[in-house]
Amino acid sequence: MINTNLIVERFNELLDSKSFHALRNELIDLNAVDIALLFDAMPRESLPVLFRLLPKELAAEVFVEMDYDSQEHLIKGFSDSELKAVVDELFVDDVVDIIEEMPANVVKRILMQADHDMRKHINEILQYPPDSAGSIMTTEFVNLRPEMTVSDAIKHIKRTGLDKETINTCYVTQNKKLLGYVSMRSLILNDEDKKLSEIMEPNVIFAQTHEDQETVAHMFKKYGLLAIPVVDNERRLVGIVTVDDAIDVMTDETTEDISKMAAVIPSDKPYLKTSTFTLWKTRVPWLLFLMFSATFTGIIIAKYEAALQTLPALMVFIPMLMDSGGNASNQACTTIIRGLSLREIRFSDIFRIVWKESRVALLCGLTLALFNFARIMLIDRLDIVIAFVVCITLVVDVFIAKLIGSSLPILATKIGLDPAVMASPLITTIVDALALLIYFGFASALLF
Amino acid sequence: MINTNLIVERFNELLDSKSFHALRNELIDLNAVDIALLFDAMPRESLPVLFRLLPKELAAEVFVEMDYDSQEHLIKGFSDSELKAVVDELFVDDVVDIIEEMPANVVKRILMQADHDMRKHINEILQYPPDSAGSIMTTEFVNLRPEMTVSDAIKHIKRTGLDKETINTCYVTQNKKLLGYVSMRSLILNDEDKKLSEIMEPNVIFAQTHEDQETVAHMFKKYGLLAIPVVDNERRLVGIVTVDDAIDVMTDETTEDISKMAAVIPSDKPYLKTSTFTLWKTRVPWLLFLMFSATFTGIIIAKYEAALQTLPALMVFIPMLMDSGGNASNQACTTIIRGLSLREIRFSDIFRIVWKESRVALLCGLTLALFNFARIMLIDRLDIVIAFVVCITLVVDVFIAKLIGSSLPILATKIGLDPAVMASPLITTIVDALALLIYFGFASALLF
Repeated sequence: MINTNLIVERFNELLDSKSFHALRNELIDLNAVDIALLFDAMPRESLPVLFRLLPKELAAEVFVEMDYDSQEHLIKGFSDSELKAVVDELFVDDVVDIIEEMPANVVKRILMQADHDMRKHINEILQYPPDSAGSIMTTEFVNLRPEMTVSDAIKHIKRTGLDKETINTCYVTQNKKLLGYVSMRSLILNDEDKKLSEIMEPNVIFAQTHEDQETVAHMFKKYGLLAIPVVDNERRLVGIVTVDDAIDVMTDETTEDISKMAAVIPSDKPYLKTSTFTLWKTRVPWLLFLMFSATFTGIIIAKYEAALQTLPALMVFIPMLMDSGGNASNQACTTIIRGLSLREIRFSDIFRIVWKESRVALLCGLTLALFNFARIMLIDRLDIVIAFVVCITLVVDVFIAKLIGSSLPILATKIGLDPAVMASPLITTIVDALALLIYFGFASALLF
Repeated sequence: MINTNLIVERFNELLDSKSFHALRNELIDLNAVDIALLFDAMPRESLPVLFRLLPKELAAEVFVEMDYDSQEHLIKGFSDSELKAVVDELFVDDVVDIIEEMPANVVKRILMQADHDMRKHINEILQYPPDSAGSIMTTEFVNLRPEMTVSDAIKHIKRTGLDKETINTCYVTQNKKLLGYVSMRSLILNDEDKKLSEIMEPNVIFAQTHEDQETVAHMFKKYGLLAIPVVDNERRLVGIVTVDDAIDVMTDETTEDISKMAAVIPSDKPYLKTSTFTLWKTRVPWLLFLMFSATFTGIIIAKYEAALQTLPALMVFIPMLMDSGGNASNQACTTIIRGLSLREIRFSDIFRIVWKESRVALLCGLTLALFNFARIMLIDRLDIVIAFVVCITLVVDVFIAKLIGSSLPILATKIGLDPAVMASPLITTIVDALALLIYFGFASALLF
């Protein structure tokens, strides 16, 4: 692990004393990702100097890994030829990622410096909807023909491979249509005069350009792949997605799910780089909504105010009953939402799930009721009818809470809603209100 | 996407009519992962017949992907030579994964059928603690020497590569010590007579055998790698971890975090394969703990029972105040826990976070108070002092809730606790009690 603060301090000293040679020697021993993290932590105005110390290829690698603010600052300071040198070294999918975050005038400069081919590829990728397979793919892949021999293929790769994002998996096409793939492994391990049509794997897992990026990421996980080809409606190969991009998609989608489950509107910036105002904007809408929906729970209490006045002992159990129902539904819905996003659970499983949750809920409810009954009788020493009302409420409440918590997310997927939005806070609010209705229902029947 | 139910039905028909040839033809056109999913869904007793229809290599690939129950059932039906044929085809890390899940007598049979080398490698991996880099690595990697030329290296890979988990990244060692790596890409793109010492990358990201698997998975994400070498204390190369295994670790660790945040004890079985009893065991301990801790909230209410009797209107706001505090802390702590697990946040950031959260909390609290004040005055038409008590409670409560929600997870990491366990339900319980104390505090001061 690298101690960023210490190194940033030393770099600043080296910069101040103009020890550029020493600085350069320290830099080229580091990994591009680590250099980018250091640069992001350095004072903005020293960036151009630092950046110019790097050898051309490393400079481009570092540039890709820096945050968008630093990139924008650097580009603004670049001469046209410096910008061109960086853009030429980049892979097209990385250029697209940068373009999507830059203001229009910077985008214009980047496109002006990109060569004809790169510009064509950039525009191709930009046409796909955000979060689609097309939008995260790269068009720089190795394209082979079925009649090539292994040695033809290797010669072709030697000639063109430098600009390809990966040569580990190569694709075999005819009239642009995807026929199969050959891994570098099978090229190396097979005889030189074998035809690709003999050694290629025709059974290829591929994605459609408009497919959701989350589905593509899931294919990587399921099949353990390093790259997935992306085809258009006519099964013409237009690009590939590589596993590193898929990992980013997985992480982002999980963060999005977790945010939604915590009643936060997802944002794709890291926490420390998000402004106070933006954090407020991502949090306050749900807080307001949930505050007003909790009013219903208050109204229920108000309705039974008279009853509570006659038997104030009942009031003490309200927080416990509300919390237990909320926790029970939260457990169920979080488990189901995670299962859905890992594709372990599908809509057709709904009856199995409801049946399983009913039994789990009954077991949990009875356990809670048992302990609670003992407590009320032995420690609180209250009336047995009160103990009975509280305990039967627990059983019924936990039962309904788990059923709602598990079925609502699945039903949400069926009507095209995001199950994560159906999650804890919203369900908790519903379950809170139900807990009180059940409690006062039993209390009215048995106590008043 | 494959419709499992339909295919399972057709397979059963083909089996009943003994149409083995047709069945085999259908099978070999599918991906090994999909075949494994289908097999897992077929009746247990048809597994041996189905499995014997597969060609040897595909059979081993399918075997690895099946669930542990099916694997155990199959192994029990295998003759020794059948078992040997499967084990010989497997990679050593996959055999280790299987061994870790099988009962002792099955493990014994597997080890008896493994050849000498494989048995040595298995025992090597098994000695590392669970969840360490050593335990998820494979020992089957390509090992090259610095004095080799590119063409020596390629010849070496042609001879030995078949049994290696990957040939995309090869490692250069001297006296077993890791010197650097060469990618297959640079082997292909460089001249045949270049020495590896000239073209290898000496700056290599590696893991220690005892390092946490989560740290290793994070290195994959950070540096966008396909494999990471694992070294012992003397920097001797002992194995590699590949990106597909890292993705599994990421997914499992995230599921674990999400479970803990929902007050569920993590289990590594998919939901639908977990028994009712096991689900109960993972959920009821936290439900019990939280139920009893909610009692404190009840006690606070009991203490102020007399006050509530004189001013019953105050009761109506209790659920809303408790929920708002809980939601506010939940938003903060979930965001921080996610940031910690993505390594975007470190302990040293605690003051920046507390400062940021204070401002966000103040903004959120004031917004909620404003809307709530309007509601109480315009809709409920209650006394302005009551409105003031409720609103000032909201502001203070949200403020404290966000501070606790954001700082507790970070403090947890400092004292070596899991931040995810510090999460929502536990914090919610604390914040619930605080909300009431603040509320009754202001009410006593201003209303009674």
